[in-house]
Amino acid sequence: MVMALDEHRLFPMNERARAIAAELFELTSALAIISPHGHVDPTLLLDDQAFPDPASLFVSNDHYVTRMLVSAGLDVPALLAQGSRAVWRAFVENWHRYAGTASAYWLNHELQTLFDVNLESAADPDALYDALSRRLTESTFRPRALFGAVGIELLATTDDPMDELVAHATLAADPGFAGRVIPTFRPDAYLDPSHPLFAQKIDALSDWAGAPADDYVGYLGALEARRAYFIAHGAVSTDHGVLEPYTAELTSTEAAAIFRRAVAGTASAAERREFAGHMLVQMARMSVDDGLVMTIHPGVVRNHSSDALMRLGPDSGHDIPLATSYTQNLRPLLQRYGLEKDFHLVLFSVDESTYSREIAPLAGFYPSVFVGAPWWFLDAPDATLRFRAAVTETAGFYKGSGFIDDTRAFMSIPARHDMARRLDAAYLARLVGEGRVSLAAAHRIAVDLVVDVPRRAFKL
Amino acid sequence: MVMALDEHRLFPMNERARAIAAELFELTSALAIISPHGHVDPTLLLDDQAFPDPASLFVSNDHYVTRMLVSAGLDVPALLAQGSRAVWRAFVENWHRYAGTASAYWLNHELQTLFDVNLESAADPDALYDALSRRLTESTFRPRALFGAVGIELLATTDDPMDELVAHATLAADPGFAGRVIPTFRPDAYLDPSHPLFAQKIDALSDWAGAPADDYVGYLGALEARRAYFIAHGAVSTDHGVLEPYTAELTSTEAAAIFRRAVAGTASAAERREFAGHMLVQMARMSVDDGLVMTIHPGVVRNHSSDALMRLGPDSGHDIPLATSYTQNLRPLLQRYGLEKDFHLVLFSVDESTYSREIAPLAGFYPSVFVGAPWWFLDAPDATLRFRAAVTETAGFYKGSGFIDDTRAFMSIPARHDMARRLDAAYLARLVGEGRVSLAAAHRIAVDLVVDVPRRAFKL
Amino acid sequence: MVMALDEHRLFPMNERARAIAAELFELTSALAIISPHGHVDPTLLLDDQAFPDPASLFVSNDHYVTRMLVSAGLDVPALLAQGSRAVWRAFVENWHRYAGTASAYWLNHELQTLFDVNLESAADPDALYDALSRRLTESTFRPRALFGAVGIELLATTDDPMDELVAHATLAADPGFAGRVIPTFRPDAYLDPSHPLFAQKIDALSDWAGAPADDYVGYLGALEARRAYFIAHGAVSTDHGVLEPYTAELTSTEAAAIFRRAVAGTASAAERREFAGHMLVQMARMSVDDGLVMTIHPGVVRNHSSDALMRLGPDSGHDIPLATSYTQNLRPLLQRYGLEKDFHLVLFSVDESTYSREIAPLAGFYPSVFVGAPWWFLDAPDATLRFRAAVTETAGFYKGSGFIDDTRAFMSIPARHDMARRLDAAYLARLVGEGRVSLAAAHRIAVDLVVDVPRRAFKL
Repeated sequence: MVMALDEHRLFPMNERARAIAAELFELTSALAIISPHGHVDPTLLLDDQAFPDPASLFVSNDHYVTRMLVSAGLDVPALLAQGSRAVWRAFVENWHRYAGTASAYWLNHELQTLFDVNLESAADPDALYDALSRRLTESTFRPRALFGAVGIELLATTDDPMDELVAHATLAADPGFAGRVIPTFRPDAYLDPSHPLFAQKIDALSDWAGAPADDYVGYLGALEARRAYFIAHGAVSTDHGVLEPYTAELTSTEAAAIFRRAVAGTASAAERREFAGHMLVQMARMSVDDGLVMTIHPGVVRNHSSDALMRLGPDSGHDIPLATSYTQNLRPLLQRYGLEKDFHLVLFSVDESTYSREIAPLAGFYPSVFVGAPWWFLDAPDATLRFRAAVTETAGFYKGSGFIDDTRAFMSIPARHDMARRLDAAYLARLVGEGRVSLAAAHRIAVDLVVDVPRRAFKL
Repeated sequence: MVMALDEHRLFPMNERARAIAAELFELTSALAIISPHGHVDPTLLLDDQAFPDPASLFVSNDHYVTRMLVSAGLDVPALLAQGSRAVWRAFVENWHRYAGTASAYWLNHELQTLFDVNLESAADPDALYDALSRRLTESTFRPRALFGAVGIELLATTDDPMDELVAHATLAADPGFAGRVIPTFRPDAYLDPSHPLFAQKIDALSDWAGAPADDYVGYLGALEARRAYFIAHGAVSTDHGVLEPYTAELTSTEAAAIFRRAVAGTASAAERREFAGHMLVQMARMSVDDGLVMTIHPGVVRNHSSDALMRLGPDSGHDIPLATSYTQNLRPLLQRYGLEKDFHLVLFSVDESTYSREIAPLAGFYPSVFVGAPWWFLDAPDATLRFRAAVTETAGFYKGSGFIDDTRAFMSIPARHDMARRLDAAYLARLVGEGRVSLAAAHRIAVDLVVDVPRRAFKL
Repeated sequence: MVMALDEHRLFPMNERARAIAAELFELTSALAIISPHGHVDPTLLLDDQAFPDPASLFVSNDHYVTRMLVSAGLDVPALLAQGSRAVWRAFVENWHRYAGTASAYWLNHELQTLFDVNLESAADPDALYDALSRRLTESTFRPRALFGAVGIELLATTDDPMDELVAHATLAADPGFAGRVIPTFRPDAYLDPSHPLFAQKIDALSDWAGAPADDYVGYLGALEARRAYFIAHGAVSTDHGVLEPYTAELTSTEAAAIFRRAVAGTASAAERREFAGHMLVQMARMSVDDGLVMTIHPGVVRNHSSDALMRLGPDSGHDIPLATSYTQNLRPLLQRYGLEKDFHLVLFSVDESTYSREIAPLAGFYPSVFVGAPWWFLDAPDATLRFRAAVTETAGFYKGSGFIDDTRAFMSIPARHDMARRLDAAYLARLVGEGRVSLAAAHRIAVDLVVDVPRRAFKL
């Protein structure tokens, strides 16, 4: 009755395909983890404190997990106020609701591989809570120990452009920590005058630069300087979380004029949109100059419920995707820089219909465009196989980003990479079995997807 | 050469998956049918007349079936005028055109399980017509007898808000009929000033309420009173067939003013849209008050061909879907009531791209939002499996509506529910076989999907 | 290590499904090739010259193949300037990039079936280049010999309305060539005032007709006359490559007025759009009169990169799809002619989300509407199976266009048709195995899809 971790999990059920998948997975299962985009807090590794309890580790800080409790009608703010034990109980009682989701798959992987625990057969939530809490005090469960034990080679965080990157610098300078933890430049609030924090961020940036807040040239220079600061601290990419991947080109005069009005708070909605689109093109220009890879994560309405935002805060599970268009929106940017040597633009999507329609065709022509791994609501097994099938026939295997875990949940990183490698093995096994790719080619591709592809896309 | 009904039909071909699917289907195949949304005419059960002939039963009144004859170039109005025998002949001659469609699958199920007839091997259409007509005179083929024989526990109809619900009341009061037949409040024409029947419906409503037609407060009160009347007759839900699921909030003053102009026929297109969106929010408000579940079936252009509408009438197969957006359209409604305790909003879609992009993320957060079963052009085997794969990884199994047959074709109800259970067994069997769900969990889920899930979503 | 062509390639891996697929494919593998839409240059067959070298044959003229080299960062214009040997070397060195794409599949088929060459195990690109160049001098590799050897019964080209069709006439009159090569009327630049060549094309058309350029009635008459000319040369269809399938009806007075302004270059963008939409309806009217099948290939932004257009020319791999809507856009045309007897309108799409949402529902009702085969970025194995699964459940097997290779790459035609037949066999095998279609019906359907379905759709 109990689901132990099947060693052939996620492989196709057909025996011949299963055997090929197992053969391919064998080649990659032990390779180091490269994580060039994600949201782990670097102070986790800086402080290296023990995780206090299983609820804090697996539930409270993972919005994939808490949103499911909200969706079931639980009063999650009240639960969180009651403390970790109450959260844990609620989670275990509602475990059946996660069946079939990516979170259940990862949590099962984490609990079984690290703690030999199977939630489905676990008797008493409280006894389990106590047992896990005790285990978490062991030194092997400290973040740095886990970082090494699970084989992370590189971990990128996501950071505000004005962040001083103290955690990154300290970790890099620490001879006792061999891991590579690098920042990512995420300037959304600095580029879009419609962002609620725009005025505040521009103030901070101009203060730092010692220039007037509404000086467009100074603003561009300050952004360039902050990018240089990030590069000096190891950054390889910038990330852009825009509602639409709209790009536009303004003349410097136009841009300077709108910027002045934007800082004064008098720019119209249309002007703010044009300016934000213009600044994406400026980011591409700077990337051509300084080499930072540009990644775009568009198409999500953040904080869909104002009430939930107030009660649960941001990143609490009610960011909801919408239809997204890349072909026309990115054209101005690609007209200007799409054929530029060594410019890299990685496109992520939460709108599956864009995979075969827009993203693969763009990556199948522009040398600069790379297909981002399946993101967020699409990061689970079936969606990942749909992604592979939708993009590979047009763009092949070599214009991808490599797997991106994009997670805040540190503990889920090895589970996610393990899953991605299994699914690539499963997809390749089918192509081999259907006579579409040779077994020899599949061997090479399976390894390249884990090693060369992310290295190339992120210039590692 | 003849396709008998395969007892393992719709299960995966892989032997191991097939065995698991059979094991799961065994648990649900005999469970009672709950049908909380559909379009069967309640007078069918009230009158309990014998079906006159196989064409009337299987062809003429099922727009899934007649539209295929239209699409093949047949003059269907002329055929219908010629009578049932001519319709039946045309249908049998064109049977090959249905291969691979849901209709063929269901019709095959119905004809074989009820009459031991296989259209593919049936020799003479006329002899078959006569044989089936004779069988239909038997008492076991009367609607009420079939209702019981196929195990329908609850059947919801779809009704005009001014319907007196006589059939429902008579059936409920009839000690000789044990089934539960309940109405559904479908107020489209009363809420949208762009609806061709708006003026006429508002007149009827205000006459009934004894209030001036253009009094907004009286109008709201009358709607509330009609909802109460439906609840008293067993209704558990309201249904909304809108072109777009647009919602908006107007002040009472604004709403009253637009309503006056709408009743006078002078409201602008923009005002009519705002008002219709406002009334969807009002329906949500009323649902919070009176507990009726709110279901939305959006995104279909009704009567695409005016010519066909004139010749064939409404609901004759030329309602055509278009791209639909939920995330932004429903935001005003969900901002107001999305977190409200015991409010239920079931979202259906004929735009598959919304499953993983919008509907599953909304249901995976808002306690009020439920994922509607695959609807209309998506109610066939492959589409249903795509639906499961698209929504489950984000929303799990417990935020669904349960299977909804949504049919006018009474005879197809058991075939449709049988199909849905087989497909859920097939989907679960794959998850079990791929190590993603335990067999024990799959057992529980398979039964819950048929019993607890629809009961919870529709508050039964 | 080497992938020989698997005789069961593209069939499902499940043994039972595989056996059924093989049985079905056996029925169609040797049937003649009907290619009612494509882009082969008819002078290829007229001149019947030997292909000069393998790069010219397989690489340089196939934008599916060159775009992948561009996407990998190669300087393709420079390569082309260096000549065929350099192109061939670059292609062979980058062969791994094509793995999993349709091009790799077809090229592998072509090289193995015609030349017994496997690129993966081929040692030296230069030796291979020389060997293939020698083989290409053999008379069996001349275009006309191949035309017959691979079993092409009919091949349609795509032609400018003012083309004199000399090649077609000469081929038809040549007793030494038994093949049927027919033109297709492709009037995009003549119908859309926004087309860069509109003025020039209207000049040529009116010169030919001997009428003033801005005379709307003369313009319609000239188009009708050119269609008649094409029909006299064997044409069976017109083709329309529009950005959006927008249709509209103007009065003759409105149309004449806009046409005058369009020819004068003073029509507004809105007027140009209306006029182009009006002319699509006019094309439908003419099709009702003269019987030409109307095919629409919408939704592609041509020449996305101006820089690449300048350096590589048109049709060089940077035509990028975008979201497309048929339901509302085509309504005016279908309101007018959708139910017209013998009018045929074949709808292609590069937006997969429209298959189940719009195209299948339209074809499942309107006798005039046919579902176009999977097109361009969707012409590979997985996309083709998604297409079948998305449209068949609503529209059945008999409202399709038949397989359309739509290629400029003459050599790929048999590989593409072979692939399509294998995939139809694979899809049908699954339906048979899942008890959804009988084996007898699948036998009939497999053959009909290759013979009767394209003949009916294209009135052959």
